[in-house]
Amino acid sequence: MTSLLRTARCVRPAFAARPASRITPIALRRRYASAATAAVADSGEQPYFPDEPREPIIQTSIPGPESKKAIERLGKVFDTRSLNMMADYQRSYGNYIADLDGNVLLDVYAQIASIPVGYNNASLQLAATSPEMASALINRPALGNFPQHDWAEILETGILSVAPKGLDQVFTGQSGSDANELAYKAAFMWKRQQQRGGADVDFSAEDISSAMNNQSPGAPDLSILSFTSAFHGRLFGSLSTTRSKPIHKLDIPAFDWPQAPFPALKYPLDQFAAENAAEEQRCLDETERLIKEWHAPPAAIIVEPVQSEGGDNHASPSFFRGLRALTKKHDILFIVDEVQTGVGATGKFWAHEHWNLTSPPDMVTFSKKAQTAGYYFGNNELRPNKPYRQFNTWMGDPARAILFRAIIQEIERLNLVESTAQTGDYLYNGLARLAEQYPQDIQNLRGRGQGTFIAWDSHRRDDVLRKGKGVGINIGGSGERAVRLRPMLIFQRFHADLLLERLERVFKS
Amino acid sequence: MTSLLRTARCVRPAFAARPASRITPIALRRRYASAATAAVADSGEQPYFPDEPREPIIQTSIPGPESKKAIERLGKVFDTRSLNMMADYQRSYGNYIADLDGNVLLDVYAQIASIPVGYNNASLQLAATSPEMASALINRPALGNFPQHDWAEILETGILSVAPKGLDQVFTGQSGSDANELAYKAAFMWKRQQQRGGADVDFSAEDISSAMNNQSPGAPDLSILSFTSAFHGRLFGSLSTTRSKPIHKLDIPAFDWPQAPFPALKYPLDQFAAENAAEEQRCLDETERLIKEWHAPPAAIIVEPVQSEGGDNHASPSFFRGLRALTKKHDILFIVDEVQTGVGATGKFWAHEHWNLTSPPDMVTFSKKAQTAGYYFGNNELRPNKPYRQFNTWMGDPARAILFRAIIQEIERLNLVESTAQTGDYLYNGLARLAEQYPQDIQNLRGRGQGTFIAWDSHRRDDVLRKGKGVGINIGGSGERAVRLRPMLIFQRFHADLLLERLERVFKS
Repeated sequence: MTSLLRTARCVRPAFAARPASRITPIALRRRYASAATAAVADSGEQPYFPDEPREPIIQTSIPGPESKKAIERLGKVFDTRSLNMMADYQRSYGNYIADLDGNVLLDVYAQIASIPVGYNNASLQLAATSPEMASALINRPALGNFPQHDWAEILETGILSVAPKGLDQVFTGQSGSDANELAYKAAFMWKRQQQRGGADVDFSAEDISSAMNNQSPGAPDLSILSFTSAFHGRLFGSLSTTRSKPIHKLDIPAFDWPQAPFPALKYPLDQFAAENAAEEQRCLDETERLIKEWHAPPAAIIVEPVQSEGGDNHASPSFFRGLRALTKKHDILFIVDEVQTGVGATGKFWAHEHWNLTSPPDMVTFSKKAQTAGYYFGNNELRPNKPYRQFNTWMGDPARAILFRAIIQEIERLNLVESTAQTGDYLYNGLARLAEQYPQDIQNLRGRGQGTFIAWDSHRRDDVLRKGKGVGINIGGSGERAVRLRPMLIFQRFHADLLLERLERVFKS
Repeated sequence: MTSLLRTARCVRPAFAARPASRITPIALRRRYASAATAAVADSGEQPYFPDEPREPIIQTSIPGPESKKAIERLGKVFDTRSLNMMADYQRSYGNYIADLDGNVLLDVYAQIASIPVGYNNASLQLAATSPEMASALINRPALGNFPQHDWAEILETGILSVAPKGLDQVFTGQSGSDANELAYKAAFMWKRQQQRGGADVDFSAEDISSAMNNQSPGAPDLSILSFTSAFHGRLFGSLSTTRSKPIHKLDIPAFDWPQAPFPALKYPLDQFAAENAAEEQRCLDETERLIKEWHAPPAAIIVEPVQSEGGDNHASPSFFRGLRALTKKHDILFIVDEVQTGVGATGKFWAHEHWNLTSPPDMVTFSKKAQTAGYYFGNNELRPNKPYRQFNTWMGDPARAILFRAIIQEIERLNLVESTAQTGDYLYNGLARLAEQYPQDIQNLRGRGQGTFIAWDSHRRDDVLRKGKGVGINIGGSGERAVRLRPMLIFQRFHADLLLERLERVFKS
């Protein structure tokens, strides 16, 4: 393993020790040019970023003196108490994130799972410096009123080219929370339209007057059903469906919406198949009871394929098929929140592809690695019956849609979904071996067959994350005690080897 | 007036008749280069965009055949029912918006008041094509965890360099709705902290458990007070404070928050001073009653300096000073929503500068012309007492912050706030003359002394807007019957002359 790392060519060991002048895009492109002659690593893998550092470089404690100065300055005008690392993105590259003190870490957190194809990716750089991008930035349209002439083409060749099966339309937004709230609004409009008797039945005078007073029926007593430990965002509607941690919710008014239990499964899943199946059935039963009995009936259910912020909680395809069946049975919508799971990390482009649904979700929301946001849908009934109902000034962002198109092209060019599936299996197996050696440090390992979307529990989780920095790996947590891996799609087997080796150093400490 | 238009030099009458090849940034820059030799218009004004079309060009009905084809294509994947005009931004320039059929309109709507310094502005183009911008686009950080090393500098030289007096900190977001909801969250956390007895008093066990169930006290029965006809956005919390139109609110669940009457003033304001003062006092009294009596006490009041979406409703500085006094008296926060009024259009950088407040607002929200969003604040108590309370993945966008900095520099370079104040006075006087000639078409003219933030009522408003397109002017409406002008800050006296002349054509029709 270490020999692989040592023999990786096209690496500049002094990468982080360069003088402080900024690395220009031209310098980056020159560096990229050398990719043409890149070595094939010992593993037989072609490195996607041949010029990446060979391994992490730790030159100071983190934060080091330069970072401390910068943090102090920033702290005067911006809240820095959640600051993890003051980054230098012009020196970050591929899977590696740099700071101001010459430290360069293997990044398997990737901006909370939102960097898809590497820092300073050359293909994205081309898209970011294109005339099309400049125009999108400086002439930002109000897309609902004055869309740009090529908006259909940008959608068709980008966002819609990876639309989940069965969904062929999109409503664009600006963040994961925004995407979910837009989907909720579509669900409420759809349900009320159905209750009124169809798209042709107009609002009643009572609907109109009560809506203006925030009262039912115009502002209806309907709800969105979500699950314990779910995370769907932090705006007021999305936060009402978020049930991850008190710190996310405290002191914020919330809608009295129902919360069903998410299955508390035992890992590894296949060893506890019967118990887990019973637990999932219990949760489905309780979900159905809430659908039928909650005082504010749900217009939709929202669920994450893997509960991410809430602690990397998995459920089986059969559970999700059961949810889909319940929504069909009770004529409500099924929204799949793929904000964190989407865009390849689970070894499928969309994680719900793992479920083999017989009918597609009604809406699928996305953000993070897409670098833009929104919801996909297929059923025309989900277009509100009048204009200006689902509307806002910007309604998305062509600049970010252009970037997502470049991300999609890069994913396809390098076949990154398939490679993430394979690298994920390799990494999972390595972690399973480590779990045997260090059973206290890797508990409830999960994510087998889910690409690199892998996590485990640790009783000294925060300690592990902190020590990880010291040995050059940047990792995130989720829930109360999970270590979650969220590497980029360009994370390769030799990165996995390096990660495993560094984790072992931490476990030994 | 017309002679001024005819003698304007550096104009390409065939601007819109060029072949269909895309106008490249280089071509734009070449065109900009001729600015150095630009003529001074007859008015003595130096045109900011000397190469703008001399006047609107109308070649087809709108939408023309090319636009219709493009709209049909887009309609298959994106809701086009609120589409106003299919735009060609690469052919749009300065104050002029182009479509696919060779039509070029003087744009005084400007993407719902969100384009500050002209289409294809050369200075913004430089910022948009800078290495700094490319890095911001392709290495988008999770700002709360991994801010970029120069985030403090970007804030200090950009967003914070125009912070309202007394406010020296910012929390960045992504849209006007988002900015307002972030401000609401800060207000709720502040109020609950105060109720608990200070920042050092920890949450109770009951707070924690009830918050997870969306119940009081953890999810408190507190509110935000807003005004009739207000518009503060369309996410669930912001929509609960929006009271503009039923179509904005119907079928969406809302919080039962209080709505105070916004003064229904008579115009021109100075002719009805006594009546208007009495009306404002009535509204202040009712506001105070709601603060004291509403079942869910307000943590804050939010108000727009000019109610924009709700119909361009004005109130006097004295009314706003009265609101500030009420919030002080009852120890709640005063949030000023400058999403539409901010960034120069009223002849001050922030519209609330017109009020001569003795203490600054607690929070000021912004978006639109800033091309980024967020809220300013000054009081450190508005930083939540723990990290991760006000937090999300992206927490703003350095790319857009860089663009706002370039916008600010352009505004300062050309002294656009002052010039907008002057052009606004000139335009208002011209409209006042037209109002005498066409009293049916210009009723309740308003916005004197408020830069170009001018509106009037019309009983055939939608007809006027439609006919405006036919004579080459793109105008928006607000409320039920207001025509609202929202030109860019580069709108000059000769544009005002042209607008007045075209409006007169419409009124005569």
